[in-house]
Amino acid sequence: MSEKLSEAAFDQLFRTARTYNAFLPKEVTDEQLHQIYELAKFGPTSANSSPMRVVFVKSKEAKEKLAPFLSEGNRAKTLAAPVTAIVGSDQAFYDKLPQLFPHADARSWFAGNQPLIDATAFRNSSLQGAYLMMAARAVGLDCGPMSGFDNAGVDSAFFAGTTVKSNFLVNLGYGDASRDLFPRSPRLSFDEACRIA
Amino acid sequence: MSEKLSEAAFDQLFRTARTYNAFLPKEVTDEQLHQIYELAKFGPTSANSSPMRVVFVKSKEAKEKLAPFLSEGNRAKTLAAPVTAIVGSDQAFYDKLPQLFPHADARSWFAGNQPLIDATAFRNSSLQGAYLMMAARAVGLDCGPMSGFDNAGVDSAFFAGTTVKSNFLVNLGYGDASRDLFPRSPRLSFDEACRIA
Repeated sequence: MSEKLSEAAFDQLFRTARTYNAFLPKEVTDEQLHQIYELAKFGPTSANSSPMRVVFVKSKEAKEKLAPFLSEGNRAKTLAAPVTAIVGSDQAFYDKLPQLFPHADARSWFAGNQPLIDATAFRNSSLQGAYLMMAARAVGLDCGPMSGFDNAGVDSAFFAGTTVKSNFLVNLGYGDASRDLFPRSPRLSFDEACRIA
Repeated sequence: MSEKLSEAAFDQLFRTARTYNAFLPKEVTDEQLHQIYELAKFGPTSANSSPMRVVFVKSKEAKEKLAPFLSEGNRAKTLAAPVTAIVGSDQAFYDKLPQLFPHADARSWFAGNQPLIDATAFRNSSLQGAYLMMAARAVGLDCGPMSGFDNAGVDSAFFAGTTVKSNFLVNLGYGDASRDLFPRSPRLSFDEACRIA
């Protein structure tokens, strides 16, 4: 059995973590991006399907390729962020199930069932995107996720010739609380969002 | 700036955490369910839309109400779990945006745009479901998520007369590693799932 994590860890992962719009001018290293993935990959997915695919957009050239597909309100902050992760989902994820779920013919549960494929890819790449953000916070980074962008444009620029589709974007870096950080918005209370039956 | 969490925290949240099929006979308290939500609610969602709604199925009566809608392979373990969380999404989440995003007319960004409503509800309730699992692990509990069940049946039994639809289920408790815990399945390597551009 596990103990509770510390109050400081609760803060870092959830309570004082924020969505940052500005980041300090400090590099996010390739090693950190590997660390984040090496944690996030262990989060649970349906039949271990692991549909998430990620492009970590870091170079000036790649940022410029991304720029035209960002919404007006997200463009400047995204170009300025140390890294922007494009969280995508491989719509042919089931072709990897013989590798990922070797103890059963899990590929056959999905192949040919397009509504199940679509729901599984979307649900599980979203779950994995959340694990990625939690992992980023766990290694001491901050996140700025966004879903308002031109998905088809991003797909043609970064995933052409593949079965991957973009899901959402996450800016990564060291958050700058002195710039463009809005007051925390209210959350639903337990009783508004949950019940115990 | 935050420090990295400890190696023990990385293990508890990601590296040694597992999807459990069996749980120890030890209660998950209502207070713990509140703690989990009070952490998870702070995870980021699009425009703070927070579409996740949760029924924590804990009583024998509620478990029996859930039973007919579980897949054969998930039924016994789910009935035996201390708590089963039904993670749902409120398809009318945008009606709460005047409360949740008070600094702009965010409701108008969604109302009437059904594809955007559907995608936002599904993506963000999935993100929040992942935060809920990470929060459960952070407070020392273990998870057993499942997406194979009769969604329409669960919706009629638990969300009748509301705008909430079920997304996925999560068994919660103290994992019993001595029963039905399979060896860890392989994950995709960084290079199989990610690239740095």
